Amino acid sequence: MSIVLVSTARAPEKWASTLKEKNKSLDIQIYPDVDRPEAVEFAISWKHPEGLYQNYPNLKVIASMGAGVNHILKDEDLPEGVKVTRIVDDQLTKDMSHFILLQCLAVSRNLFTHLQSQSSKTWKVKSYQTPEKTSVGIMGYGVLGQAAGNVLKANGFDVCGYANSSKTVDGIQVYAAEEQEEFLKNTQILVCLLPVTSETKGILNLDVFKQLKPDAYLVNVARGEHVVEADLISAIDQGMLKGASLDVFQEEPLPESHPFWNHPHVHITPHVASMTDPESVANQLLENYKRMQNGKPLMNEVDVNKGY
Amino acid sequence: MSIVLVSTARAPEKWASTLKEKNKSLDIQIYPDVDRPEAVEFAISWKHPEGLYQNYPNLKVIASMGAGVNHILKDEDLPEGVKVTRIVDDQLTKDMSHFILLQCLAVSRNLFTHLQSQSSKTWKVKSYQTPEKTSVGIMGYGVLGQAAGNVLKANGFDVCGYANSSKTVDGIQVYAAEEQEEFLKNTQILVCLLPVTSETKGILNLDVFKQLKPDAYLVNVARGEHVVEADLISAIDQGMLKGASLDVFQEEPLPESHPFWNHPHVHITPHVASMTDPESVANQLLENYKRMQNGKPLMNEVDVNKGY
Repeated sequence: MSIVLVSTARAPEKWASTLKEKNKSLDIQIYPDVDRPEAVEFAISWKHPEGLYQNYPNLKVIASMGAGVNHILKDEDLPEGVKVTRIVDDQLTKDMSHFILLQCLAVSRNLFTHLQSQSSKTWKVKSYQTPEKTSVGIMGYGVLGQAAGNVLKANGFDVCGYANSSKTVDGIQVYAAEEQEEFLKNTQILVCLLPVTSETKGILNLDVFKQLKPDAYLVNVARGEHVVEADLISAIDQGMLKGASLDVFQEEPLPESHPFWNHPHVHITPHVASMTDPESVANQLLENYKRMQNGKPLMNEVDVNKGY
Repeated sequence: MSIVLVSTARAPEKWASTLKEKNKSLDIQIYPDVDRPEAVEFAISWKHPEGLYQNYPNLKVIASMGAGVNHILKDEDLPEGVKVTRIVDDQLTKDMSHFILLQCLAVSRNLFTHLQSQSSKTWKVKSYQTPEKTSVGIMGYGVLGQAAGNVLKANGFDVCGYANSSKTVDGIQVYAAEEQEEFLKNTQILVCLLPVTSETKGILNLDVFKQLKPDAYLVNVARGEHVVEADLISAIDQGMLKGASLDVFQEEPLPESHPFWNHPHVHITPHVASMTDPESVANQLLENYKRMQNGKPLMNEVDVNKGY
């Protein structure tokens, strides 16, 4: 019985050594050096080549190395009946909240504008917005959304959420999909934390951008597929949005020829809003490996049809 | 009896209109259009021309428009016996805390590095530090320092302080001047909030920088006089510091020829860490004006000899 580590974007060696430290008897094969694919029942995966898992006849579980699973589910040749799990990690959740707080503070305090003024040696005093006067709307109000909402609220921001159903969570109003208009017109900084599904793909488009408050700004920390890229550039160029902080892209690494790189109001980070620390999640991966071996229900299993 | 508004760096008109709204009977003269200097007993002041107040024979109080008073006290021709007050404003304190939080998050999450990578179209994943693993040392632990310390701590940072005497404030350890070595060796991000005095002028120098933790970073939101500018550039260029965020400068606006503008690891904001909102402080200025008229003790009076 074997585990395969498949990662084309994150170095798998540290994952292997961390898992081995916890359990020396583990049989771990690291893709592409896999000589016994038939032994593999459990894959730990980040951005595998599509169709790859057809080569593992006894695969039962694919465990994402991170909170996202779209990199797994978008593979149309996933073996029938294979289970998919995601990471739920307090540290990952905290890191995401801090990254979002950083972006919201940077926007309200004009940090990007000031850094741009510096590049032209311009001393330009600009009055700022206090968090209390800055409304942040969080699309996707699950574990990550709620944590971010609470951190923003604790730091004074005026927060609301958007999810499948309307509710109030820790004093924060969450709008349902059918109240989208109301949600958008109350939002200045739009933070996207949605999962990628057929309904949310392309949700960040011109029609949405134009309903936001004046001086609106987009923070996308979910997936590149949420953004209609041409609409985003057009919305900024038309002054509908004053800018965007993007951590995720349809193609990663972002191709050198992409217009986002050069756009003065698009601020790029290379998918670092939250990065799984193998140390921090090894235990939950091994617990699921054990549960699989014993035929028990997995933790943090994803509904393959729903996509989250 | 008259008030004079003197501001060479902040537009005085909004101050005049805000004060007038509160009290229509006020006699306000706006420098340089002052035709009755002998009527002036109270000045509301921001970066006045040195020696100016010698022209006001009946001046009793100079009220700073902000939390800082060095722009007043550095004038060697201040009239004998004149009282000086500063603004203490909750909003100003909060704004300062948020600005410092923004800078500490930007450093720990490599925001400046990522923005620089963007300018060369480089996709460079870099692992970040959590706040828990990021130590912030705050020099100057008065009202502003304590507020910033508490906000940073609430967001997970490892905070300590530095002040005249050692103490523990809200669970945060504050080192005394004689424990400077201990304070510095525990600090990665050094935040300066000190008043300018003969002891603190030039305190941010090579000897201090070299005692900080590896990957140290300077955030100066106090006054430009605290920094030995050549030492700062040298410390960054030697790798002693990985960079600095500077909001204040020895000369403001920062002269176009200044090497800070072009330095890739110096991040400049134009003295905007906290900006007084006239709306928010008009009442305390008018209260002091009334107290002066009635010969009562002033609020937030500064010891002209100590400098704070």
